[in-house]
Amino acid sequence: MAGTNSERIMLAEGPAIILMEPQLGENIGMVARAMANFGLAELRLVNPRDGWPSEKARAAAAKADHVIDGTVVFDTLEEAIADLNFVYATTARQRDGFKPVRSPVTAAETLRTKFRSGEKTGILFGREKSGLSNEDVALADEIVTFPVNPAFASLNIAQAVLLMSYEWMKSGMEDVHAVPFDAPEQPPATKDELIGLFDHLEEALEARNYFHPAHKKPKMIENLRAVFSRRAFTGPEIHVVRGVISSLDRFTRAGQRLPAAMTGSEAQATDDDKRDA
Amino acid sequence: MAGTNSERIMLAEGPAIILMEPQLGENIGMVARAMANFGLAELRLVNPRDGWPSEKARAAAAKADHVIDGTVVFDTLEEAIADLNFVYATTARQRDGFKPVRSPVTAAETLRTKFRSGEKTGILFGREKSGLSNEDVALADEIVTFPVNPAFASLNIAQAVLLMSYEWMKSGMEDVHAVPFDAPEQPPATKDELIGLFDHLEEALEARNYFHPAHKKPKMIENLRAVFSRRAFTGPEIHVVRGVISSLDRFTRAGQRLPAAMTGSEAQATDDDKRDA
Repeated sequence: MAGTNSERIMLAEGPAIILMEPQLGENIGMVARAMANFGLAELRLVNPRDGWPSEKARAAAAKADHVIDGTVVFDTLEEAIADLNFVYATTARQRDGFKPVRSPVTAAETLRTKFRSGEKTGILFGREKSGLSNEDVALADEIVTFPVNPAFASLNIAQAVLLMSYEWMKSGMEDVHAVPFDAPEQPPATKDELIGLFDHLEEALEARNYFHPAHKKPKMIENLRAVFSRRAFTGPEIHVVRGVISSLDRFTRAGQRLPAAMTGSEAQATDDDKRDA
Repeated sequence: MAGTNSERIMLAEGPAIILMEPQLGENIGMVARAMANFGLAELRLVNPRDGWPSEKARAAAAKADHVIDGTVVFDTLEEAIADLNFVYATTARQRDGFKPVRSPVTAAETLRTKFRSGEKTGILFGREKSGLSNEDVALADEIVTFPVNPAFASLNIAQAVLLMSYEWMKSGMEDVHAVPFDAPEQPPATKDELIGLFDHLEEALEARNYFHPAHKKPKMIENLRAVFSRRAFTGPEIHVVRGVISSLDRFTRAGQRLPAAMTGSEAQATDDDKRDA
């Protein structure tokens, strides 16, 4: 989806993403892109199979060059996390042992809290095929796991990084229901505007003998008003709807203006006048 | 990451995913996989460039065959959404017009509510390069947009589908902090267990004249207890820690058992006895 604007703020802070023995450069690149999408920038690789740098990674990163350029390679996981205070291990499988298991939401909130207090943190992701070993997990503080379809639980590495990066971004928002932009600001319609719409519509319909037979008119008006009340129109929307009514009311299909005497919105003709017309 | 278990429940319900004129089979396959990960199954394609079925899509779907097999192709967006009651359009760009803009969390909650009341819903995703046109968006009820890094906002189609599918899954959870499995249940330690640890440790250290000089002993014990109190040990963890202390206390580096008289945990010797040993 389009929408990148290079003049906007480039977010580049938060936990390090640590990939354990990644195999495919494409995956590393997709990880870098996902990180950049959600404001992370620090990528660490433990013993990547095909070496580093990787042109395939750069191509797949889709211009997340700041992440690719800053990527650091380590021989061992111990070295990769040496300077960090707190590390999450991601895993889809239950592990024996003493590590607490957290949801992505909880993990992101914890990482955000630690980030704000100046701690250095990381999120560790396993090998494409075999994930993290128990020895890898033992070096982490806590485990994070994703709420997945039980029968189809296998996430690829870039998807797993995307979800954690997304939750990281959300953890920095005051309200997860907030949106970065909204429809143009429109005041809700006042009752006066709404009643103006009712009057306009009902007059135009009355002029066409819509309310027939006469004894059903009160119920028909009630129904009509219910339909239009439920829509929660804004002021500008009321304006659009009244334009539609005026157009139907005043013009023929050929685009010719009806004589003023035929249009109730301009002439206060009686029902009988119009029915005869 | 590993973790799929084909004997577990296969979730396959919820909103349809509609892709507008997708180009690459690989992307369609990655979309199918992301849907399967989070329990969605109904994929609709509007006018896919390279036709359908697609072997590239099937390969990239990583065994999400139930999604690939059920995919339906339409000539127009109007046909693709004809049977639905409510449709979200995903976009990263602000649009003119009257559509409300929602966050993924809000959108997923809305979709879940409508699903539970029996409405058929869909989420519409744009072309790889150009996204959705204003005409496409006009056919949707509301807009959903992602909270992204302002300077790096371009999500690929499979990533966008992954995030919406993930939020769909979360919207069905009573508590987004819940996890599908947890570390083996462990009761938190009782104070009795904790004090047993203190006694054990302090006795073993006392036997080595750790608390020296004597006037600092109260402060040293206070610090030691603070360090071990802060850990919030479980009962089984206390057991592990006491095993460590016993091992250090009772055995030499060569693995030889120290004489019982030298180990405070077995012999209730006085401090003087041990200091002389």
